[in-house]
Amino acid sequence: MSAASDLQATLDASRKSWIEAANDPACDFSIQNLPFGVFSDTRHAARRVGVAIGDSIVDLAVLQASGLLRLPDAGAGAGVSASTAASAPVFARDTLNDFIALGRDAWRSVRIQLSQLLARESATLRDDAALRERALVSQASATLHLPLQIPGYTDFYSSKEHATNVGSMFRDPKNALLPNWSEMPIGYNGRASSVVVSGTPVRRPNGQLKLPDQERPVFGACRKLDIELETGFIVGRGNALGEPIACADAEAHIFGMVLLNDWSARDIQQWEYVPLGPFNAKSFATTISPWIVTLDALEPFRVAQPVQEPQPLAYLRHDGAHAFDIALEVTLRPLRAQQATTIARTNFRHMYWTMAQQLAHHTVSGCNTRVGDLMGSGTISGPAADSYGSLLELTWNGKNPLELKEGGTRAFIEDGDELTLAGWCQGEGYRVGFGACSGEILPAQR
Amino acid sequence: MSAASDLQATLDASRKSWIEAANDPACDFSIQNLPFGVFSDTRHAARRVGVAIGDSIVDLAVLQASGLLRLPDAGAGAGVSASTAASAPVFARDTLNDFIALGRDAWRSVRIQLSQLLARESATLRDDAALRERALVSQASATLHLPLQIPGYTDFYSSKEHATNVGSMFRDPKNALLPNWSEMPIGYNGRASSVVVSGTPVRRPNGQLKLPDQERPVFGACRKLDIELETGFIVGRGNALGEPIACADAEAHIFGMVLLNDWSARDIQQWEYVPLGPFNAKSFATTISPWIVTLDALEPFRVAQPVQEPQPLAYLRHDGAHAFDIALEVTLRPLRAQQATTIARTNFRHMYWTMAQQLAHHTVSGCNTRVGDLMGSGTISGPAADSYGSLLELTWNGKNPLELKEGGTRAFIEDGDELTLAGWCQGEGYRVGFGACSGEILPAQR
Repeated sequence: MSAASDLQATLDASRKSWIEAANDPACDFSIQNLPFGVFSDTRHAARRVGVAIGDSIVDLAVLQASGLLRLPDAGAGAGVSASTAASAPVFARDTLNDFIALGRDAWRSVRIQLSQLLARESATLRDDAALRERALVSQASATLHLPLQIPGYTDFYSSKEHATNVGSMFRDPKNALLPNWSEMPIGYNGRASSVVVSGTPVRRPNGQLKLPDQERPVFGACRKLDIELETGFIVGRGNALGEPIACADAEAHIFGMVLLNDWSARDIQQWEYVPLGPFNAKSFATTISPWIVTLDALEPFRVAQPVQEPQPLAYLRHDGAHAFDIALEVTLRPLRAQQATTIARTNFRHMYWTMAQQLAHHTVSGCNTRVGDLMGSGTISGPAADSYGSLLELTWNGKNPLELKEGGTRAFIEDGDELTLAGWCQGEGYRVGFGACSGEILPAQR
Repeated sequence: MSAASDLQATLDASRKSWIEAANDPACDFSIQNLPFGVFSDTRHAARRVGVAIGDSIVDLAVLQASGLLRLPDAGAGAGVSASTAASAPVFARDTLNDFIALGRDAWRSVRIQLSQLLARESATLRDDAALRERALVSQASATLHLPLQIPGYTDFYSSKEHATNVGSMFRDPKNALLPNWSEMPIGYNGRASSVVVSGTPVRRPNGQLKLPDQERPVFGACRKLDIELETGFIVGRGNALGEPIACADAEAHIFGMVLLNDWSARDIQQWEYVPLGPFNAKSFATTISPWIVTLDALEPFRVAQPVQEPQPLAYLRHDGAHAFDIALEVTLRPLRAQQATTIARTNFRHMYWTMAQQLAHHTVSGCNTRVGDLMGSGTISGPAADSYGSLLELTWNGKNPLELKEGGTRAFIEDGDELTLAGWCQGEGYRVGFGACSGEILPAQR
């Protein structure tokens, strides 16, 4: 079989795993998924690279050391010589960067090998109890870590519905969408230092608040703390300074996707953001999901992006379908509540600008990108009122509070609330899911 | 002698070096300066840490290996155990980060030892011809490299004159300064990946340009390429997420300063920047000077910052003087011209918001910073028309082109132009200078 057909076989909807939990149609981590992350566990405190399947994590460092998992000889990544790539211990690391830097052939080779090793009919690992004991870790006993060293974090603003809603509230409902919005994927540089992994508590920020009845701002805890439901993509192959990435080539530079919550302090934002954009309103925390779902795993869920009118300038054009059908939802669980309430349901396919267009635009000036760079989609809002990706929109700047199943109403986030993003592609009898992207809000520092 | 008096002695204006070039009153690299950088040379291609003095560079890796330079035993930096700090080979590295991470006691100890070793009356190195031959490299034979791995780059907007000039041109001359400007050091996240060292050619960016007579933007090379004359400071001690740096403590977190040219594509900027701030207009390149002048070396040049009215909110208050008297100038030399023209002269002391206030504001939300983070001052414009720090202001958006001594006139930068920032503190008979921060503009990619 060719590599292409091997890769195609990893997507076969009928493939099942001998790890039975992976075959549950509602499990995020089917054998078709195989997302990458970094974990440690109670047995070994050292962080290493793993792949989620069912209720387990496959320890790739163990598989490589045992000889069951091999890297292709020809290292495609910068700085990796062909002779060392195959034996480089890229999985016994505390981030995925070194593995990702090996290049797409390596990502695909590992995906194919894992898909084969974990398939129901494959005895090699299934029937080797001693190795299985070392190579499989239950997710329940593992701690998941930030999977990347993130050299740069950029956030886009690519949902037409979100930009229109925000423009209506903060500027002018008649001219909600600014003229530049339809011409380019508007983006800004975010703060990479404060990107944290799901499960990390987030402290409510302090900052300057401009109250309507006072001439000067006051200093205090944010009163309009919000989420932004986003996805992010991870740059898998960078570009050199001065050498833009063409839109048609851009997807080959993407390793995979995560869920991303761009926590936002709306009151701080509104006072600070003119003219240089959001700063303290966003830089206190950005949460990502621990598992990176590869673009290869998302391939069956590729769909057409919305029609773009006017037609973009030439450097932003690409043929074919470049959106993905990823169901998304947000739940809110108040402190000590038993039940969470789903407050929004939407889909990544609504995004106006594609990831490829975002990356082409980001680099068209000559700006370089690096392996591990994180690029947020921008808040993903759909057309319906319950499909908005922020409380700002869902409650229309607090005017229409949400009724929770348990815990009262919410205009914005209260201390102790746990917000969770979820996302998955629905295949026939299986899911390719992202797992949870959660954070609980701690009271502001006094 | 105490460490404090040893440190004070490094600033003694009467101290001279046995490296005679350092005693020239116009030399940037006096024995009072001792700035840190990273270099390689024709004899050794490996990058290592050096200190500039006169026309030479002292190779700190050689001095440490020879036993002449010791690090204090108690490593103050995170992750450095007391027993290993003294022998850690932090100078045989391609960036300064590991040395900076050792903490301020280590920076000061090295400064004191070098000041003593290089003093005219000190025979240890002066009279050891063999060691001198290995430990001293002429600047003429050296290549200077980006001295840091920069985890994050933030740029502020802290010159009142600059913000007023830009507001007058782009918004409303009657309300040039926005209300938030006087309440906080406005800043935004820049792109760390494209920070380059002085001498790196800069390619004119392509991007979207909105021409006044056309409904839609066109794609093409920037027509309004500009400089921004700035300084930057380097974070020497970071802060943990959720733990702000108090304004009164902020200077202790700063390792030193560089010159910084925040290249700006004004036409791209004007079309893209609302509502999320500058992005492609800035991200193609930011040039910094190769030598980091420590805050300790700048101490004699500390002066009062401008009076701040209204009085800032409590978290932005600090007693005492927190500006520095640093003369700054910009020269422009057209391709093949013999002569450069000085196009602006100003001083860092004009800056309204101090570095301490910038760092306190940046972290007040809980945002973390890391060793090596670069924080740009924002364009430094003085009150006089020839003290503006950008061509945008100097030519008033191109309306009043500058007359060059050689090479015609300039509204904005032309291909082949070399722009150079210079900066120095003038002591009695000596300078503490930054060296050059230069870049030549290459034609846009077609």
